[in-house]
Amino acid sequence: MSLTPNQHPIVLAIDMMGGDFGLDTTLPACRDFCGHHPNAQLRLVGDEAAIKAHPNAAALLALPQVHIIHAPEVVTMDDPLEVALRRKKNSSMRIAINQVKDAQAQAAVSAGNTGALMAIAQFVLKTLDGIERPAIASMLPNAMGTGTTVLDLGANVDCSAEHLQQFGLMGSAFVSATMSHSHASKPRVGLLNIGHEDIKGNKVVKLAAPLLKASPIHFIGNVEGSDIFKGTVDVVVCDGFVGNVLLKTTEGFSGLVRNRLNHSFKSTLWRKLGALFALPALNAFKSEFDSRKFNGAALLGLRGVVIKSHGGADAVAFGYALQRAHDAVAHDMLNKTSLMLAQLHAQQD
Amino acid sequence: MSLTPNQHPIVLAIDMMGGDFGLDTTLPACRDFCGHHPNAQLRLVGDEAAIKAHPNAAALLALPQVHIIHAPEVVTMDDPLEVALRRKKNSSMRIAINQVKDAQAQAAVSAGNTGALMAIAQFVLKTLDGIERPAIASMLPNAMGTGTTVLDLGANVDCSAEHLQQFGLMGSAFVSATMSHSHASKPRVGLLNIGHEDIKGNKVVKLAAPLLKASPIHFIGNVEGSDIFKGTVDVVVCDGFVGNVLLKTTEGFSGLVRNRLNHSFKSTLWRKLGALFALPALNAFKSEFDSRKFNGAALLGLRGVVIKSHGGADAVAFGYALQRAHDAVAHDMLNKTSLMLAQLHAQQD
Repeated sequence: MSLTPNQHPIVLAIDMMGGDFGLDTTLPACRDFCGHHPNAQLRLVGDEAAIKAHPNAAALLALPQVHIIHAPEVVTMDDPLEVALRRKKNSSMRIAINQVKDAQAQAAVSAGNTGALMAIAQFVLKTLDGIERPAIASMLPNAMGTGTTVLDLGANVDCSAEHLQQFGLMGSAFVSATMSHSHASKPRVGLLNIGHEDIKGNKVVKLAAPLLKASPIHFIGNVEGSDIFKGTVDVVVCDGFVGNVLLKTTEGFSGLVRNRLNHSFKSTLWRKLGALFALPALNAFKSEFDSRKFNGAALLGLRGVVIKSHGGADAVAFGYALQRAHDAVAHDMLNKTSLMLAQLHAQQD
Repeated sequence: MSLTPNQHPIVLAIDMMGGDFGLDTTLPACRDFCGHHPNAQLRLVGDEAAIKAHPNAAALLALPQVHIIHAPEVVTMDDPLEVALRRKKNSSMRIAINQVKDAQAQAAVSAGNTGALMAIAQFVLKTLDGIERPAIASMLPNAMGTGTTVLDLGANVDCSAEHLQQFGLMGSAFVSATMSHSHASKPRVGLLNIGHEDIKGNKVVKLAAPLLKASPIHFIGNVEGSDIFKGTVDVVVCDGFVGNVLLKTTEGFSGLVRNRLNHSFKSTLWRKLGALFALPALNAFKSEFDSRKFNGAALLGLRGVVIKSHGGADAVAFGYALQRAHDAVAHDMLNKTSLMLAQLHAQQD
C-alpha cells in the first residue's frame, strides 16, 4: 500500500470504553499509537473521570495531540439494539461516531458490541447511494501475501441475493481503493459456496450468482472456504452469519495450531533443545499468523470511516485497529470507495 | 475408542470409481488396508475391466479377501441429482450402497459426489425413525484431544429449525455410541452461532435453540466457530452450508500454515540448519494436523453405514476413510446410534 499525501492532520475518534477490557487496552494502545504517529490527533471518547483516574492515562493525556471527549454512557456487549440506539444517546460509541458525522474526526474506532456499532453507524452516518446495508470487511492471510478481503463478517445475518450483490460491489471498490497489488485495479470477486459448480449452494447464493455475474465487476464465480487462503481471489462475498463463523473458525484453529506447536517443542528435552536452534524460523512463523495483526475490520457502505476492533483485543491488537483507521484515512478510502461505487452503479444502470 | 468384539468378518463395499482420482487412489488404499486388516473383506465395486487392467490391481486382486462387484456406470462430480439417482442405476456408488442394503456388506465407502451419495443412500437405505434428513458428521481436532463432531457438513444446505434439532439428537447419539472419553456418556451439544448470547443468530438458529433446549440431550447453548477447537463442546450443530464452509476454511487455513511453516524454515541457511534440530518436533506437529487423518465422514440418520471420503483424497487419506468404515462396523455404530436415538425420541414424546 502506498500512502496518499494528506495535508491535514489525521484525527481519530476512539471509543475508549468498548470491548472486553475497556480502558485497560485502549489507553496503552493509544499511547503506543501516538509514539508512532506524532502528527496524528486522538479524541478519546469515554468517561472523563474514569480516563483521568486510570493508572495508564497520565503519560498519554500529557501529549498535546490527545483530547478527551466526555461520554457518560457505555454500550455493553449484552445491550439490545434498541437500548444501544434509542436510549444510550450519550454512549462513548455514539459520540465517537458523531465526531465523524460532525467532521471533528476522519474515522471512528470501537471494540464494542458489533450489532450496536453497525446500527448506530448506519443511523448516524447513513449509507452510500445504492447500498441498503453496510457490511463488515476484513482481510485474511493468503499464500500470495496479497490478503483476501472477506465480507460480510457479521453485520447482516439474514441476507438477500441483492445484499450479496452489493457486498460484491463494495468489496471490489474497497480493494481497488486501498490495495496496490497486481490485481487491485480489477479485483477478482468470488461468491462463497460449497462447491465451484453452478448447481451448488443454498437458495440465496443460487440467486446471487447471476446478479454478481451481471454486475460491472470481475466476478469469477463460486469459491470455496479453502480458496480464501490461496490468493486466487481478492474479494470473497458471503452473508454475515457464514462470514462470522468462518472468521472465528479461522481464529480458533489458529489458536489450536499455536498451542500444539508450542506443545510439540516442549514435550521432550531433545525437542526443547531443537526449539532453540529453530527459534528464528519459529518466531517468524508465529508472527506471520499472529491474529492480532488482522484486527480492525472496516465497516463498508457508510458515509464515514468506522473501524471495528475485536471485542477481546489486547492492546497490541487494538493498536492494529488504530493503524487500520489511520491508513484508511491516509488512503482516502472513503472518497475512493464512494467514487468507485458510483461508477459501478452508473455502469450497471 | 475400544473395539467391540465382532464375531463375523467385517465386509466393506468400496465405490472404486468415485473421487477426483478414482482407481489411482482407491486401489493402493485398498491394498494397504488389506495389509493391516487380513480378516476384513473388501468388495471392490466398479468397472471390472478397468479394475483388472489397472497397473496397481494385480497384488490386490490376488488376495482371497477381495472381490470385484461389476458396476458399468459412474456418477460424475457434475451429474445432477436426478441423473445420479434415476438414470445411473448401475453406478459404482449405487451398487456399493445396494450391497449394504442387501446385507452383503456392513458399510459402504465412496469419494464420489456428496449430493448424489446422500440422495442415493437416503433413497436406498431410508432414514431412521424420526429423522427427516440424514446429515454428514465428521470430527475436527481440539485442544483436549477428544475431537469435536460437527454436523451437518454439506448434505442439507437449506435447513429448518427442526432439522437442526434432529442433528443435535443424531450427533449426541453418535458420540455416545462411538467415543469413550469422559463426556461421551452425556455429550455436550452446542448450536453454532455468531455469539454466545441468546439474541444472536439468523432466523433458523434462533428458532432451533429452544427446540434443542427442550430435547433430551445435554444442550449447552450457542457456541462460536472458535469453540470447535477448544474441546469445551462435543457436538456442534449447524446447517450444511455453514458446516461445509467451516470445514473447507479449516482445511485451507491448515494448508496455508503448513506452506508458511515450510517456507519459514527454508528462507535462510541458518534457519535450514535450525530445521534439522527441530525435525522431530516439526514432524510431530505436522503429523498432528495432517488433514488426511480426518478424512472419512459418517452419513448419520440412515439405516446403514455409509462413509464419505473427500473427493480430492489421496491414497493415504482414502485409507483413513476405509479405517473409519471398519471402526464404525467394529463399534456397532449403527445399532448403538439407532438405539440411542430411539431412547431420545421416547423421552421426547
